[in-house]
Amino acid sequence: MSIRSDADQIMKAALASALPDNAVKEALLKLPQSHGKKYVVAIGKAAWQMSKAASDYLGDEISDGVCITKYEHVLGEIPHIRCFEAGHPVLDDNSVAATKKALELVESLSANDIVIFLISGGGSALFEDPSISLSELQDINKQLLACGASITEINTIRKRLSNVKGGKFAKKCEPATVFSIILSDIIGDPLDMIASGPAYPDSATAKNAIDIVKKYSLSLSDKVKELLEIETPKELSNVTTHITGSVKQLCRSAMAESEKLGYEPIFLTAALDCEAREAGRFLSAVAREHAADGKSKAYILGGETVVHITGKGMGGRNQELALAAAPGISGLNNVCIFSVGSDGTDGPTDAAGGIVDGTTAEILKGKEISIDVLLQNNDSYNGLKVCDGLIITGPTGTNVNDIAVLLIK
Amino acid sequence: MSIRSDADQIMKAALASALPDNAVKEALLKLPQSHGKKYVVAIGKAAWQMSKAASDYLGDEISDGVCITKYEHVLGEIPHIRCFEAGHPVLDDNSVAATKKALELVESLSANDIVIFLISGGGSALFEDPSISLSELQDINKQLLACGASITEINTIRKRLSNVKGGKFAKKCEPATVFSIILSDIIGDPLDMIASGPAYPDSATAKNAIDIVKKYSLSLSDKVKELLEIETPKELSNVTTHITGSVKQLCRSAMAESEKLGYEPIFLTAALDCEAREAGRFLSAVAREHAADGKSKAYILGGETVVHITGKGMGGRNQELALAAAPGISGLNNVCIFSVGSDGTDGPTDAAGGIVDGTTAEILKGKEISIDVLLQNNDSYNGLKVCDGLIITGPTGTNVNDIAVLLIK
Repeated sequence: MSIRSDADQIMKAALASALPDNAVKEALLKLPQSHGKKYVVAIGKAAWQMSKAASDYLGDEISDGVCITKYEHVLGEIPHIRCFEAGHPVLDDNSVAATKKALELVESLSANDIVIFLISGGGSALFEDPSISLSELQDINKQLLACGASITEINTIRKRLSNVKGGKFAKKCEPATVFSIILSDIIGDPLDMIASGPAYPDSATAKNAIDIVKKYSLSLSDKVKELLEIETPKELSNVTTHITGSVKQLCRSAMAESEKLGYEPIFLTAALDCEAREAGRFLSAVAREHAADGKSKAYILGGETVVHITGKGMGGRNQELALAAAPGISGLNNVCIFSVGSDGTDGPTDAAGGIVDGTTAEILKGKEISIDVLLQNNDSYNGLKVCDGLIITGPTGTNVNDIAVLLIK
Repeated sequence: MSIRSDADQIMKAALASALPDNAVKEALLKLPQSHGKKYVVAIGKAAWQMSKAASDYLGDEISDGVCITKYEHVLGEIPHIRCFEAGHPVLDDNSVAATKKALELVESLSANDIVIFLISGGGSALFEDPSISLSELQDINKQLLACGASITEINTIRKRLSNVKGGKFAKKCEPATVFSIILSDIIGDPLDMIASGPAYPDSATAKNAIDIVKKYSLSLSDKVKELLEIETPKELSNVTTHITGSVKQLCRSAMAESEKLGYEPIFLTAALDCEAREAGRFLSAVAREHAADGKSKAYILGGETVVHITGKGMGGRNQELALAAAPGISGLNNVCIFSVGSDGTDGPTDAAGGIVDGTTAEILKGKEISIDVLLQNNDSYNGLKVCDGLIITGPTGTNVNDIAVLLIK
């Protein structure tokens, strides 16, 4: 079973590297030396963990801070940092009130000061100071969703109706430096999309915004039309951005750990987005080809596969990927495939993912359980459960997509 | 467009290497020197091409020969080789009559003689000398199909009711040597399965055969029951086997040609068998990851993907794979993905496969053609047709599965 323990070690190393604590501390190693004061502004679902990590690392060096996360996500007091809870995924009055505290904090900083800006997923709803009333903003949002506008189009409009999105928060921090740490959960890391880019130049123009209004015949007030004409910052000279805990970091850590264990790491992609079960079958075809090569190899993939629900069973995309790979590697005693969600939950189950090896299909066959039927019912959980195939980690406190690894020993 | 011409060159090199002519001639280089006579027995859909290639190479060295292929597949006379046409996929009286000619040919050979035995797909129906009547054989076949027996189970039974299958033809050639050249179209090359292995030891036992009879409660005559008890040859000392034109050879040739053009070849698998469109999406995710690496890479895959028909359009598995990859590589000007069937036909179309690059999705969008809708209708042909995405080769005279290549330049 030593290949299973290798898999376990690689998985744990990858997940640990993506934890907010480790990710933030690693990024803070690059914090520039300065005689000014240090402030923290943290937004998103992992804002509390990221703030805690910054506080653990910097201690009393932090002069003041504001942390805005979703309800029930503040897990205790943090020295020098005021924590607020607010609405997510739909912003509410508490989002706006907490954002005002952050804006007050950065209002009159000096050029030597540093704002450590900690961004995680969900920041778009939690961090907002709208230029119009909340109700008007919500109406425009509804129109955009109803007409089928893309998320890029929605963001192009919303950045112009906000005092913090689209690079405007970084502008408000001037003349201070913004040291931005992004815990990314978006494939491909489009920096102006994450939390609608409060500290990143907007790639869209006012003309783009007006074209979208025309395209969908949006019904807007004169004030909104005026706001859309105003250009967003296209350059931000006071910002440095550090992406951390991204799916690529998951992959990098898995590669490093595989190499340490004697495998040749082969990085295929961090942008996997096909059907989960077919990714599993694809990997099993790679395994069959190379199982007899006599070389230890680790194929590493990150991303977020999809599942089309056709049944009423229990499972998730990582569990489906793993289970679907089992028949194709049946009988190969030097192969193991796992897939795991970095947040520790895969679908509506208590498992984080699934792991299979050359014995899995045979074990299920012995129990007269058909893998085809399991997949048809989206019931991967109950299949993996009876063959030691579930990966259980509990919530990890981060979410940077999934990682899948094929090991050939 | 230089990446497209690289793709074209790699594809042509791979397909050429799998052609019966080249494949047979390459294998014949290893023909042992002997003072005896040389005979040819060729069976299968490519039997005529393989015979022709052997004749071109050996000329008057061939003393006598029998070639058995399907109807309308004899394309002319071949010196020293008698050509017969017979039933495929269902064997008929002509199959049996032609097989008798081959058996007569090898009846009284000497130890110095060599039987060059050329095997291609379809040999199972074309080459048969049943131990029972054709009608009884057909009845057993029907029972096996009706009860859902696997192809391995069916072959285990049929080898025992045949005088040529399951290694028995090679036995009949003794004391002559059998130099067997297999043009493989079965993934993974299971040598006792191709044409039911007339010159390859049977891996199944008489006990296996009897277990299958019990499992499916087959209704059999006493004579058949007796035949099933007789063991098939488990060792054949007079046979050497040369697999050629297999899907692995397609991949090897594509790798060699890619390397010649400056790409680092990365061989993923020759056993791809997942859903065609998802394989395309998977490859596009690999492309997105590595397009900016600054290194030229060629990811090589062989196999036979599957398509689940949901629409009434025109297309094939290779075309679906390629078209489904297009959105994921849109805008990448150094990426190209193609997939092609080695027989020159992909699905019920005149195309052999499809090829896409970073411009494909944009071209289709400009024509207001939705790739999603095309795929939903299994109409990849009509999409690829309007964006220079069809690969047209005409029938190639071979069938060794498909090859797919992702090029990053």
